[in-house]
Amino acid sequence: MTTPFQRISVLGAGAWGTALALNAARAGRDVILWGRDHEALGKIASERQLPKYLPDITFDQPLEVTTDLTEAADVDCILMVTPAQTTAKIAEDISFFVRKGTPVILAAKGLEKNTQRMMSEVLKDYLPQSRAAILSGPSFAADVARGLPTAVTIAAETDLLAEQLCASLSNGAFRPYASSDLIGVQMGGALKNVLAIACGIVQGKQLGASAHAALMTRGFAEIQRLAGKLGARPETLMGLSGFGDVTLSCSSAQSRNFSFGFALGEGKSLADLFGPNAKLSEGAYTAGVAVELASQHGIEMPIAQAVANVLDQSITIDEAVAGLMSRPLRRETD
Amino acid sequence: MTTPFQRISVLGAGAWGTALALNAARAGRDVILWGRDHEALGKIASERQLPKYLPDITFDQPLEVTTDLTEAADVDCILMVTPAQTTAKIAEDISFFVRKGTPVILAAKGLEKNTQRMMSEVLKDYLPQSRAAILSGPSFAADVARGLPTAVTIAAETDLLAEQLCASLSNGAFRPYASSDLIGVQMGGALKNVLAIACGIVQGKQLGASAHAALMTRGFAEIQRLAGKLGARPETLMGLSGFGDVTLSCSSAQSRNFSFGFALGEGKSLADLFGPNAKLSEGAYTAGVAVELASQHGIEMPIAQAVANVLDQSITIDEAVAGLMSRPLRRETD
Repeated sequence: MTTPFQRISVLGAGAWGTALALNAARAGRDVILWGRDHEALGKIASERQLPKYLPDITFDQPLEVTTDLTEAADVDCILMVTPAQTTAKIAEDISFFVRKGTPVILAAKGLEKNTQRMMSEVLKDYLPQSRAAILSGPSFAADVARGLPTAVTIAAETDLLAEQLCASLSNGAFRPYASSDLIGVQMGGALKNVLAIACGIVQGKQLGASAHAALMTRGFAEIQRLAGKLGARPETLMGLSGFGDVTLSCSSAQSRNFSFGFALGEGKSLADLFGPNAKLSEGAYTAGVAVELASQHGIEMPIAQAVANVLDQSITIDEAVAGLMSRPLRRETD
Repeated sequence: MTTPFQRISVLGAGAWGTALALNAARAGRDVILWGRDHEALGKIASERQLPKYLPDITFDQPLEVTTDLTEAADVDCILMVTPAQTTAKIAEDISFFVRKGTPVILAAKGLEKNTQRMMSEVLKDYLPQSRAAILSGPSFAADVARGLPTAVTIAAETDLLAEQLCASLSNGAFRPYASSDLIGVQMGGALKNVLAIACGIVQGKQLGASAHAALMTRGFAEIQRLAGKLGARPETLMGLSGFGDVTLSCSSAQSRNFSFGFALGEGKSLADLFGPNAKLSEGAYTAGVAVELASQHGIEMPIAQAVANVLDQSITIDEAVAGLMSRPLRRETD
């Protein structure tokens, strides 16, 4: 298959970056994987393994690795798989080396704290010569690394670019679908992380599957309200990057945000979870931003609010659970 | 609290009927639970337990039981918690004893085979003096029996009746929400059982959580298409009885339909599962009806079709999985 994006770099050699790099190699692309951890990169290159993040998986493809960001920036297409709160910094770091018109596919699911920016907006500010795209949808790194069937959405400003990027990354098991709804795909991905924390709390508290399902239902309505107000298309929210990702992230211990909430629900303290070596889940940053946006747009988001309040310690977990589970008896759609 | 429906009977002393009876007792109603199994009813009345269906739970409320259907029919409100395919028979059996205007709350989630009728339509034909209502939503019997938080929808032809029924059954942990969308609440509940079988197959085959989430996304779109065509309101499908119940039933081994599909996916034969003592899941009946309705209304339902084809043995499980996981690469919303 011919593609205008033959040489692809992946920035970030964690579980998801490495899985996406493997996947691009399976699709026939020339892939270079950038990371900072020499030891991990060495294992990827020499042993085709990443034991710390993808245990018990030996890759079916060799991967070229580098710690040189300038080398990774000079390619036909960049997949940026670094945390949302570091997007600005990475974009700035590579800004001199990225060619005009290079598509940058952002995989982080989050909103920037303080500035409230979506990832595509951050990119526009720091890497204006690039073309922003978003990869999102229900996908666990281990599934993708193993070559299990996975479907995601790739959004770009034009349908043509989105379709070209899909074609470049598609293989038998990994199916990206094209979208031109950058806002919808990003807001679904960012906000579901907040809901996943709430669902984790309720599961950690052992309130049962029925309570969990009711919370997901209310939470998804909340996501649709805010995302819709910001310009997301309703059908995007009903698709893989909305509904699909919500159902996955809110139900599985494989989701970092769910696991974080679960630990809180079980009674672990924020001090433990926020400890010096803690890797904070994206949803923990996004909760506060979501609440600010909701307030600015006059939208009720009681679930995001409860998560944000737990994280800034203005309420206890028990108060949050009481709030999440209580609701006046009235019509469901009120 | 005063209610026009103080004396309530529950028909069906399985897990869900017993849980709903307990729940009505907690709400302050005078409850009588009808069943056929003398031994089980005896345990419920004397030991406050139903070990076969609700193991390790001792009820916090005493329950009055009966095997006399005429006694159970002569009440202010009936909760019919018997399988969908037996609704016609039970309605016929009690037709002489039900007072005019008695609300009958149907809890079975299914469509009648051969006739394609929704449960409310069956009731209208066999018990025309009653007023049909539907109780549906994400709820496991064990959660409700234990008094864990649960939210469901009760639909009736008028908002007033739906609200009265909600008030009659509501207690601290169990929250019913009123709806007047009888079609939406029924179609969501019936069709999600078919999708739960498909999701069980994919999980039983160990295709991973990402594949499962993608299938749920496509399946929910399919449900919305058919239900919408039949008159369901979109907001109902997005609520507890649609989205909420889909996420619960499609993800948990506690769901009979999911478990049935899971066993198929693991390689169990239909002959084993359809054996003489098999209790067929509701979705197994509804799949064929859904496909007939889809065909009559010109709607594509590839997932329901795959489930129906597996059940009538026109394709193998492996063929079904290949079909469920394959899809042309095009825009997601096409």
